[in-house]
Amino acid sequence: MQQRKLEVCITPALLHLYDISQSIVVVIDIFRATTSICYGIENGAEAIIPVATVEICESHRTSEGYLLAAERDGEVVIGFDFGNSPFSYSKDKVDGKTIVLTTTNGTYAIHQSLAAQKIVMGSFLNLTALADWLQTQNQHVLLLCSGWKEKMNLEDTLFAGAVVHNIKEFGYKLDDASIASEDLYILAKNDLSGYLKKTSHSERLKKLGIEADIEFCLNVNLTTAIPVLEGERLVKMKAFELKV
Amino acid sequence: MQQRKLEVCITPALLHLYDISQSIVVVIDIFRATTSICYGIENGAEAIIPVATVEICESHRTSEGYLLAAERDGEVVIGFDFGNSPFSYSKDKVDGKTIVLTTTNGTYAIHQSLAAQKIVMGSFLNLTALADWLQTQNQHVLLLCSGWKEKMNLEDTLFAGAVVHNIKEFGYKLDDASIASEDLYILAKNDLSGYLKKTSHSERLKKLGIEADIEFCLNVNLTTAIPVLEGERLVKMKAFELKV
Repeated sequence: MQQRKLEVCITPALLHLYDISQSIVVVIDIFRATTSICYGIENGAEAIIPVATVEICESHRTSEGYLLAAERDGEVVIGFDFGNSPFSYSKDKVDGKTIVLTTTNGTYAIHQSLAAQKIVMGSFLNLTALADWLQTQNQHVLLLCSGWKEKMNLEDTLFAGAVVHNIKEFGYKLDDASIASEDLYILAKNDLSGYLKKTSHSERLKKLGIEADIEFCLNVNLTTAIPVLEGERLVKMKAFELKV
Repeated sequence: MQQRKLEVCITPALLHLYDISQSIVVVIDIFRATTSICYGIENGAEAIIPVATVEICESHRTSEGYLLAAERDGEVVIGFDFGNSPFSYSKDKVDGKTIVLTTTNGTYAIHQSLAAQKIVMGSFLNLTALADWLQTQNQHVLLLCSGWKEKMNLEDTLFAGAVVHNIKEFGYKLDDASIASEDLYILAKNDLSGYLKKTSHSERLKKLGIEADIEFCLNVNLTTAIPVLEGERLVKMKAFELKV
């Protein structure tokens, strides 16, 4: 194929500008949806089903054994088992379970990407595993930042930059957003937490009392599972798919 | 008023996410529309009328003494006096003249901004004059990057970062895009030309044979005029408006 493209779409509001039909789309929602999905799948969740609305999530209440997770504006929606705190996706809570999940930004981004050749989840937790896999694939890569209500946010952009930094040497053509993201990541990588403290978004999250979540979401390479969308279910990528 | 906001909208495709009714919008199209507009207004052009389409530009052909400028995809449209090369906006060419201008990205961004409290043009040419004026205004500021066909580009983002760098100390609340833009500018500012050489956009412009234009567009503080939209005409901001 032609030289692989490595693009960063800094918010889902720009996704219509990209042809993703031949691309692997990496959905990124560092605080906290894709971090929690990576952690949950690593911890043995059978599947995580991303749904667009709280109502659809609610409609699964009768499905036996399903856990229902709903977050809006950073908080667990009343009446649901949990939201998108990674601490809710530990082994004791999710092993063997199927979780139905809706979030403000992350699950929205997943649904916007359905035309992609393949959709996987990225977070600092699975950075190296994801990068190692991507570079073995003979495919264009689009890193899709979920952002905050369609505006860019720094944490998702930094992670996109981390992926660029890890795979660009394997022969990709970068767009301007990839170049910018990588340069920001290089600036921030020795102190991600410190760098992100200066953002307004960080203040907003602090008000929600989720500083522990935020610190957890910046752990690099805690996991190796790559959640991949199969039909409507996010599942662990199987060993044979991990090979070239 | 409340603390002033200082926001960066990295492409016009995201402008609908911002309430600009109480903001000064700075339109940025470094390569080359707003650079040429700043240069033309500095050089005595009576007005520059940004229009949306080549057809509207053409319809002014009967207006006596008007210069018609039309650019699409980086090239002068056949049959027009000139496009958006800054060298076409020198004193001998534009002094006392009215120019009707349509470009791929810059004039589009201007038309998207009409709901703003005020619309001005920014470029490296008038950086300090613009920054000095903005910080005296008791208004929110939105820096609107024209981008390339609605995607982000580095040169517009860098200039947005330059403005942030020059005025943020005067008490603004920055969004994540402002923080990112400033950090990229700080990285690049000692060698703007070298930094931009690594972009794909730069390759595209090189193919057009406009390297001299590009170098010119990176001149910092060559001019002091601030082009401001009055009705449908971009004119030089008057001295009394420059005061607090």
